[in-house]
Amino acid sequence: MFDKILIANRGEIAVRVIRACREMNIKSVAVYSEADRDSLHVHLADEAVCIGPPPPGRSYLNISNIISAAQVTGADAIHPGYGFLSENARFAEMCAANEIVFIGPPPEAMRLMGNKVRARETMQQVGVSVVPGSRGLVQDTDQALRIAEDIGYPVLIKASSGGGGKGMRVAQCGEEVVRGILTARSEAAAAFGNGDIYLEKYVEEPRHIEIQILADNYGNIIHLGERDCSIQRRNQKIIEESPSTAVNEELRRRLGEAAIEAARAVNYRSAGTVEFLLDRHGNFYFIEMNTRIQVEHPVTEMVTGIDLVKSQIAIAAGRELNLRQEDVQFSGWAIECRINAEDPDRNFIPCPGKITGYLPPGGAGVRLDSAVFAGWEVPPHYDSMLGKLIVWGRDRDEAVARMQRALDELEIKGVKTIVPFHRRILRNAFFRRGETYTNFIQRRILSHD
Amino acid sequence: MFDKILIANRGEIAVRVIRACREMNIKSVAVYSEADRDSLHVHLADEAVCIGPPPPGRSYLNISNIISAAQVTGADAIHPGYGFLSENARFAEMCAANEIVFIGPPPEAMRLMGNKVRARETMQQVGVSVVPGSRGLVQDTDQALRIAEDIGYPVLIKASSGGGGKGMRVAQCGEEVVRGILTARSEAAAAFGNGDIYLEKYVEEPRHIEIQILADNYGNIIHLGERDCSIQRRNQKIIEESPSTAVNEELRRRLGEAAIEAARAVNYRSAGTVEFLLDRHGNFYFIEMNTRIQVEHPVTEMVTGIDLVKSQIAIAAGRELNLRQEDVQFSGWAIECRINAEDPDRNFIPCPGKITGYLPPGGAGVRLDSAVFAGWEVPPHYDSMLGKLIVWGRDRDEAVARMQRALDELEIKGVKTIVPFHRRILRNAFFRRGETYTNFIQRRILSHD
Repeated sequence: MFDKILIANRGEIAVRVIRACREMNIKSVAVYSEADRDSLHVHLADEAVCIGPPPPGRSYLNISNIISAAQVTGADAIHPGYGFLSENARFAEMCAANEIVFIGPPPEAMRLMGNKVRARETMQQVGVSVVPGSRGLVQDTDQALRIAEDIGYPVLIKASSGGGGKGMRVAQCGEEVVRGILTARSEAAAAFGNGDIYLEKYVEEPRHIEIQILADNYGNIIHLGERDCSIQRRNQKIIEESPSTAVNEELRRRLGEAAIEAARAVNYRSAGTVEFLLDRHGNFYFIEMNTRIQVEHPVTEMVTGIDLVKSQIAIAAGRELNLRQEDVQFSGWAIECRINAEDPDRNFIPCPGKITGYLPPGGAGVRLDSAVFAGWEVPPHYDSMLGKLIVWGRDRDEAVARMQRALDELEIKGVKTIVPFHRRILRNAFFRRGETYTNFIQRRILSHD
Repeated sequence: MFDKILIANRGEIAVRVIRACREMNIKSVAVYSEADRDSLHVHLADEAVCIGPPPPGRSYLNISNIISAAQVTGADAIHPGYGFLSENARFAEMCAANEIVFIGPPPEAMRLMGNKVRARETMQQVGVSVVPGSRGLVQDTDQALRIAEDIGYPVLIKASSGGGGKGMRVAQCGEEVVRGILTARSEAAAAFGNGDIYLEKYVEEPRHIEIQILADNYGNIIHLGERDCSIQRRNQKIIEESPSTAVNEELRRRLGEAAIEAARAVNYRSAGTVEFLLDRHGNFYFIEMNTRIQVEHPVTEMVTGIDLVKSQIAIAAGRELNLRQEDVQFSGWAIECRINAEDPDRNFIPCPGKITGYLPPGGAGVRLDSAVFAGWEVPPHYDSMLGKLIVWGRDRDEAVARMQRALDELEIKGVKTIVPFHRRILRNAFFRRGETYTNFIQRRILSHD
């Protein structure tokens, strides 16, 4: 097993990984930007190294500073968390070149899944269904219009290297295709340095259903069931749950097999997530694979009892999976609410600032993964997510009631958060019945403002 | 279901019950002494009523003030928590006389189990084994000496109305019997107003194993497995776990059946705990029944997923148990450490005072039931327990590692706590192997000081 792990991240996920290290008796090294000097992950780690000024490019994305920090402290592995360098194949290669274990999948799997068009093709080759659309990239407008006629409107124009909703446009007719291609291309070129696009059928009111998998170095791959991440605001998940009200045992088995097939096709190792759209008729389509630990991983941990971060570390250290598919038991229902420092009354504008008071909820079935403490100055340079509140209940009704109770208890003073917005969603009758889809917030919440 | 519940208690158990009420959509009324005006249970409840000055006799034990508070606020039920009035049959009767539901067992069951000698006799009648000893009360020294010779030394002299180690003496020989009777009688008379005593064989190095049961108004009784509470300091539990390293499936079944038999014998209803001594040969003996929710109930909740306080409330409202014995599934391992404001370096002297800083642990598998917040002035009038840290792991090793991690994270500034003492126990090789018994702390920890 590793002796010391450097965590190339910040905030709640850095805290999460430090906790896993401590439970495995592994020493932890935090890295931090000058803006994060007084943050919780620095406080909790065994050692901490400053890696540069606040802009991510000069610290959390600065590969050579991070590798140096690992060398100076004698860390034998690096956990990248999510975001930042977590899906950067070159970083994984640099780690290997410096004889540091990258806790994640092989660089080739990251590269392949990072290219949406190649990922789509690979899935089609192994028989995992994808959303009907163009075969490979779209070259010009005429071709796009032919394909759109072929698969039927509405269609989705997507950037090959896109993510987070950037470089994506819906088109209801030919005219919108022409316009959409132009804007998607220029947006993707600006954001990702690559204007390549492709076309997909637009699935109406789909659910976002994703399957957690674990794969070791010896060809063992298991799935840990689904997460329903349909509650999104502008393509950003804000509430996630497991299981999904739309998935029964038979569908879970089929989704799980497809996810394992997808992981096997790219020689995947480590924890990973295969994302699908699920339409109203029970058809599901591969959309992408996230080759890292995800923000919403705790809901899976709560219904399976399996610690995903410890599993990642054990796999990276060469351990064989100690679970077979039939050992994975699902129990109860888990829901996660992301606690973002944003003002829901002012179009979710980020609200950095000083935490002047903090009282976390507790008691039965409540888990808090957070970087918050009283007196912390939330820096303005990073993502607005401060932490996550996760609850478990014997059934969905108990989980929903518990989340409402925990949200009511949670006190964060000094910065605005989306807690009141979560309360609105949890009170919503459609949410309570489990009738959700990716445009739920727009249709059921914001349109009633 | 009830509309409003008054919680006749303070501290973490009052917070625990308020949380259950909120999740059941029941309004909560806190009561508080003048010393508890700024405490967490007052802050979290929907309403709060001051019931008198700090001495318990004038507030938390003042039956008429509490009944009045329920009447004034329109509460239709009272939850007594543990300690204070929770096992006071007269209080339960006063509630009934005022048409307020007492959330607990019938007064007759409380009375019978509150009298150790009658409880012992009742158990013997229904075939639940008790520690060999006197039949009924011991009248005089000669009789005591005859019984001691009969059952064999060492013997235990116990007060009929005793508890918490008061009015209890071990005797290794006749001379110690003579002396022990005198001191036990006078101690019991002073503490409980009743000097009656009886004799029991002293079981050497036993485990304290207790079985949680749930009984409804319709004759349904189930058990939720065992808790091992062998880690005690002066007969006060400080670490509890479920399951026990000393209990296998077959023994669990037999203990469970005995506990259900005990509950049935006294027409028990609500949550309750049947306590046993388990000797090194797998023999177990009934010692007493606690007719209330217990401090250590969360470890059972974590391995079964069943909310015991909500179950108490549902049963008191006349609901039928929605679980059969075969529905109770045990998963993983849970450990609780009591967080007492005591100084382990100064003979565990209580340390009330102001909490100047507080950082609770979080993350996977960690539960905190606590009344602590930064700025709270811990009053000197009450029990020193501030809260409980409970963890869950897939197995005992994971639970132990997680508890160590969580204890390391927990920061309480301003008052001394027994957290460093817990760390010592958790590091102990015998504890880690699960080799514990009720004098573990004396033999394995304190004797090495």
